[in-house]
Amino acid sequence: MEVATKEEHNPIAQDVKKGKLRDYHGPIFWNYGMIPQTWEDPNVVHPETKCAGDNDPVDVVEIGSASIAQGTVEPVKVLGVLAMIDDGELDWKIIAIRAADPMAAALHDISDVEAKMPGVISGVREWFRWYKTPDGKPLNAFGYEEKALDKKFAIEVIEETHHAWKKLVEGKTAKGKNWLAN
Amino acid sequence: MEVATKEEHNPIAQDVKKGKLRDYHGPIFWNYGMIPQTWEDPNVVHPETKCAGDNDPVDVVEIGSASIAQGTVEPVKVLGVLAMIDDGELDWKIIAIRAADPMAAALHDISDVEAKMPGVISGVREWFRWYKTPDGKPLNAFGYEEKALDKKFAIEVIEETHHAWKKLVEGKTAKGKNWLAN
Repeated sequence: MEVATKEEHNPIAQDVKKGKLRDYHGPIFWNYGMIPQTWEDPNVVHPETKCAGDNDPVDVVEIGSASIAQGTVEPVKVLGVLAMIDDGELDWKIIAIRAADPMAAALHDISDVEAKMPGVISGVREWFRWYKTPDGKPLNAFGYEEKALDKKFAIEVIEETHHAWKKLVEGKTAKGKNWLAN
Repeated sequence: MEVATKEEHNPIAQDVKKGKLRDYHGPIFWNYGMIPQTWEDPNVVHPETKCAGDNDPVDVVEIGSASIAQGTVEPVKVLGVLAMIDDGELDWKIIAIRAADPMAAALHDISDVEAKMPGVISGVREWFRWYKTPDGKPLNAFGYEEKALDKKFAIEVIEETHHAWKKLVEGKTAKGKNWLAN
């Protein structure tokens, strides 16, 4: 499932790639969603990774203990970000925890995740590195030497992609095939 | 599927845990099998990890590009090993490549895997760390500071577990519920 950016009102819908329903091959061990009012602009090349945005909202991996129902809107505490590169497109993966999660009070930045939830960052990274290989696709890559970048960096990613979304809905960026309310 | 150590002739059979068929929740990205004539002796506590063996043959993760049919016996080149610890039991994961794989000639030890197939060791480690969590089980752990140990170490593991198997089939170790031909 994904936010169908090209459909009217952008519903949450079954992802379709090349005419086929797109299913993941296995479980993801965390909650996986997106940050509303963000957009990874495919017209902008990122200076460090040299990749353009993937034309989607920014993805978020929520590492808390609850399994969150599809479609739920949950306040989260942003902790860091991985710069995933999929087929030459930049596809940030924000790492966050649900504000109401019991662990949230103990986690303030990405270093706390590594210290207090060991295995989570590497687990998320490898999940995203490998998940397309059962379709015969290559491994995904990561910018910034594969590091999980800190909270400050993650907030900047959200601000930039929110700004890009704003320009898009204000008609200042070519919308391509994306559906917009206005 | 697994080698059913308690059944007559030890067939390859659907794994059953607590009366339920045991399915993995997702794909494993490599070939996964076992090394014949090895046994991880549950009566022996390993000096470094302080864990006893898991009462199974030694598992092997084959990292080559071919998808190997179930039941196939394939010569492999041993490259290294991870000391996985599952619920207090030591469960070695030998890392190897099929001798006939195009990459086999370029890989001689675990450092070559890291250099020439980046992402594979960490991918294997995280797969085994996380795979039981969808059943509500905790993360698996790894001894030796989570390092993938080298070829020399892996060969020693195979020799030791082969020796343990030999003692088992010679009746020098209590066989417990395992089925033996003699």
